Amino acid sequence: MGNKAKKTEEKVRVIFLGGLEQIGMNITAFEYGDSIVVVDCGMAFPDEETPGVDLVIPDVTYLLERADKVKGFFITHGHEDHIGALPYVLRELNVPVYGTKLTIALIRNKLDEAGILDSSTLNTVSFGDTIKAGDFSIEYIKTNHSIQDAAALAIHSPAGVMIHTGDFKVDYTPVFGDTIDLQRLAELGRNGVTALFCDSTNAIRSGFTMSESTVGHTFDAIFGQNPDKRIIIATFASNVDRVQQVITTAEKYDRKVCIDGRSMVNVIATAAELGYIQIEERTLIDLSQIKNYPPEKTVLIATGSQGESMAALSRMANGQHKKININANDVIVLSSTPIPGNEKAVAKVINELCQKQAKVIYQDTHVSGHACVEEIKLIYSLVQPKFSIPVHGEYRHRLEQRNIAELVGMKNENIVIAGTGDVLEITRNECVIADHVQAGPVMVDGLGVGDVGNVVIKDRQNLASDGVMVVSACIDRETGEVISGPDITSRGFVYVRENECLLEDIRNVVIDTLRESCGKKKTNLSTVKSCVREDLSDYLWRRLKRTPVIIPAIMDIDR
Amino acid sequence: MGNKAKKTEEKVRVIFLGGLEQIGMNITAFEYGDSIVVVDCGMAFPDEETPGVDLVIPDVTYLLERADKVKGFFITHGHEDHIGALPYVLRELNVPVYGTKLTIALIRNKLDEAGILDSSTLNTVSFGDTIKAGDFSIEYIKTNHSIQDAAALAIHSPAGVMIHTGDFKVDYTPVFGDTIDLQRLAELGRNGVTALFCDSTNAIRSGFTMSESTVGHTFDAIFGQNPDKRIIIATFASNVDRVQQVITTAEKYDRKVCIDGRSMVNVIATAAELGYIQIEERTLIDLSQIKNYPPEKTVLIATGSQGESMAALSRMANGQHKKININANDVIVLSSTPIPGNEKAVAKVINELCQKQAKVIYQDTHVSGHACVEEIKLIYSLVQPKFSIPVHGEYRHRLEQRNIAELVGMKNENIVIAGTGDVLEITRNECVIADHVQAGPVMVDGLGVGDVGNVVIKDRQNLASDGVMVVSACIDRETGEVISGPDITSRGFVYVRENECLLEDIRNVVIDTLRESCGKKKTNLSTVKSCVREDLSDYLWRRLKRTPVIIPAIMDIDR
Repeated sequence: MGNKAKKTEEKVRVIFLGGLEQIGMNITAFEYGDSIVVVDCGMAFPDEETPGVDLVIPDVTYLLERADKVKGFFITHGHEDHIGALPYVLRELNVPVYGTKLTIALIRNKLDEAGILDSSTLNTVSFGDTIKAGDFSIEYIKTNHSIQDAAALAIHSPAGVMIHTGDFKVDYTPVFGDTIDLQRLAELGRNGVTALFCDSTNAIRSGFTMSESTVGHTFDAIFGQNPDKRIIIATFASNVDRVQQVITTAEKYDRKVCIDGRSMVNVIATAAELGYIQIEERTLIDLSQIKNYPPEKTVLIATGSQGESMAALSRMANGQHKKININANDVIVLSSTPIPGNEKAVAKVINELCQKQAKVIYQDTHVSGHACVEEIKLIYSLVQPKFSIPVHGEYRHRLEQRNIAELVGMKNENIVIAGTGDVLEITRNECVIADHVQAGPVMVDGLGVGDVGNVVIKDRQNLASDGVMVVSACIDRETGEVISGPDITSRGFVYVRENECLLEDIRNVVIDTLRESCGKKKTNLSTVKSCVREDLSDYLWRRLKRTPVIIPAIMDIDR
Repeated sequence: MGNKAKKTEEKVRVIFLGGLEQIGMNITAFEYGDSIVVVDCGMAFPDEETPGVDLVIPDVTYLLERADKVKGFFITHGHEDHIGALPYVLRELNVPVYGTKLTIALIRNKLDEAGILDSSTLNTVSFGDTIKAGDFSIEYIKTNHSIQDAAALAIHSPAGVMIHTGDFKVDYTPVFGDTIDLQRLAELGRNGVTALFCDSTNAIRSGFTMSESTVGHTFDAIFGQNPDKRIIIATFASNVDRVQQVITTAEKYDRKVCIDGRSMVNVIATAAELGYIQIEERTLIDLSQIKNYPPEKTVLIATGSQGESMAALSRMANGQHKKININANDVIVLSSTPIPGNEKAVAKVINELCQKQAKVIYQDTHVSGHACVEEIKLIYSLVQPKFSIPVHGEYRHRLEQRNIAELVGMKNENIVIAGTGDVLEITRNECVIADHVQAGPVMVDGLGVGDVGNVVIKDRQNLASDGVMVVSACIDRETGEVISGPDITSRGFVYVRENECLLEDIRNVVIDTLRESCGKKKTNLSTVKSCVREDLSDYLWRRLKRTPVIIPAIMDIDR
């Protein structure tokens, strides 16, 4: 077999450990021989279908079983859905982490908080750098996104170059730093790219995503039109460029700037330290100082633009904020769009702020950080990959990217829509889903990781829907006589004080059941319990069409 | 006092019993002397903050306490948020109900289902009719909306004319019937209108709402482009015009039409009976017949466009539909926009349909039924009311209507933003919030009306978040000895099988607590229970940072 023939058969495995069935939890492994490199290690936020869950991280069993091979995590940018699982995963798989300056600084903060910074290995990479990692070389390429220092990765592999865009947009007039490195993407494309893994988040939105700098013009207009009001601007803690634009505008209009919200203070402090934020020394004031300045000479930048109940803006809206009272002298700007699922929470905050007579501006005050249709076409035209695997986005978004890719000339059969757990085998000539491995979400609830699963979640949903009813009684093991009880305790079922009759009726149902099922020697406790559960459940459905969780706490004793 | 002076002092009270703090549950009472007329009697849908609640109806205590005065309910149109509470409220307050033909027919269906049709008085009104009701006369005026036969009401009162728009839009090219009666609104305005109660739902959307008939053009294009596919169109059950347009397009392209979804079958049958739907006899087929026709010769109209889990479209999407299997030969159109709060459910359905290889179209396939900014301006310019009270919409929407009203010349102080329970006193010269009465949501859960309140809801939220833990034990009343237990039962807490150690530790904590709190004569049971609750709660927080609801089912007995 000639050298060239051999080369075309080299096979790289790509394992999707997350990020495809849901927004967030991005993590993709590339494997060849004894080398595995992992792109990103993100978390996802839970939704109303997983009540009580704090966050969701990926199941990395596949990596743990091959821990010796894993050369490191190569992070594209510093958002939670790309770095948030590191504090959990590094505990079990302590390998080096690579990223650009701001990204590594944000990871450092997280690992410090988790108490594992000292045992971790963090490596800062510059754009243009290529890191050798076993049989792979990973090149960092500048992109634009709603956080600075975002990168696409060119993964040079035995099966050719694979480009992972990370989250990106094309911003020709970014607030800080350069435009996405279109030339390098073009050069790689010209030399031949085997596979493209491209962001699909905005694939159903036509046109181009507006430049971040357009938001600055909006801010300028708002400041200009409201010279006699306090201005409060809420945005994502991590959107350093957005905060920069507020600061720049504040300085132009001679206002002091105050940052409210722990997560934002942290991010901005880190960004300022690294020189990613330009701010005059006298501009920033502390929240405790704000009362020393006339309101119209101040700007407050706050967290809570997604209606998060504990964040600064929500506390201002519901009157729980210790230092800020909202009134008719306030102009409040929500510089964000609700993430799907947060619409009602955001509307609630807006309504509460309106009720306090503030002027609330929440339309045309945000631009996305993700590429729309025309930008996706541009990337395909530059990279011209042999194969394409749309990533980052719901199924419908990835399908739409496939449609876009076909429009610009890709063959349908060369575009693969994969799922979490799927393993792709990619050679220079072929790209197929060849295998499926254990993968998916692991729920984190309080300090527990993975101890809440589907059964527990289902129970929580049932409890939420109709509450719980506990039947307690004590039975003589020999005679079956009810010695104590039955007592009925309920939570989340009915308002007890106003429904004493109902509860008395329920008690009578249980008494009848107990009489019937215990009225003999050698009472079988588990039979008694299931009789109580069944009879009571039937009764409640007939009477109220409700199905609370019934827990019979029935004990038997020897006298 | 002269006749004219007296006339200007006549005072009408307007009592907002719902519809202002939330979308839905519209009900407003107008009172003068011994006469009360009520506009609408709607329900609201619960949200994730009220788990387990089926629907929400208004608290009508104010009306019940003045039952003799109430002349009737005057319904603007047949949507649930305007008629849905009638089956509950009429049971307690059996007064006549007035509405246009389709509206009354839909109410008749509801009351029949609730078993109170025979005891109810329903009156069909034509546009232009005026009904005398005590000191009021209520005139029905044609409008446009996403259901046919929608009306605005001109309430002729001793304090002058008050116009309530109901839900409306301005459709110059409606699919069925006439354009909103702008001439009559203008005439009333020219003669003098004291107060306008105008729909605010779309007040934050600029421009004009597109005509319903534009959706027909979209359908035509979709049918034309997909001659070889089955077409499935999901929309609101009540959107008769939308269904008409599907039928018209289907007939043009020679396809059979099948309707799937009980609520839609009912509405369409009613509308067809009354002549509000034009359909050729041979067009409609039953769901069981659909297999007898080639897929490309059929159209299915289905419920579930909001992602409702039990509706036809959701069942098709998740493979639970008994008669319809979705495949690559299907084009599915969601002719709707997600109602706030339903975004994720709708996205889930779309993703599932995409995964079954169907082509799913969900953008630009819907128009709203509510007036946008320019239509609101038009109404103000025609009616030119002395006072304005924006209704139908969240606080922010009603505020925005105030801004619009000011733009077209209303004085700020003549525009009143009211809240649920507020009582307005309106004369020809004054409009003030003068009083506040009992009003608000009453939750319906199963067959229970009002037995679930805030305490129960709070409990359900707690149960959903961390589950429940029941501690059962039996204690000797004299000696304090633990005779049986303690046993630990949990639901929604942790996956028990994989956490036996944890549960053993928990049991030991309870054993210690019981030893300490019961180890003396004359055990106080309620003290024991609170000790168990506190110690266990502390322990679980320290160990897991979780706070399940703890129910101590502890009994004491005499041996």
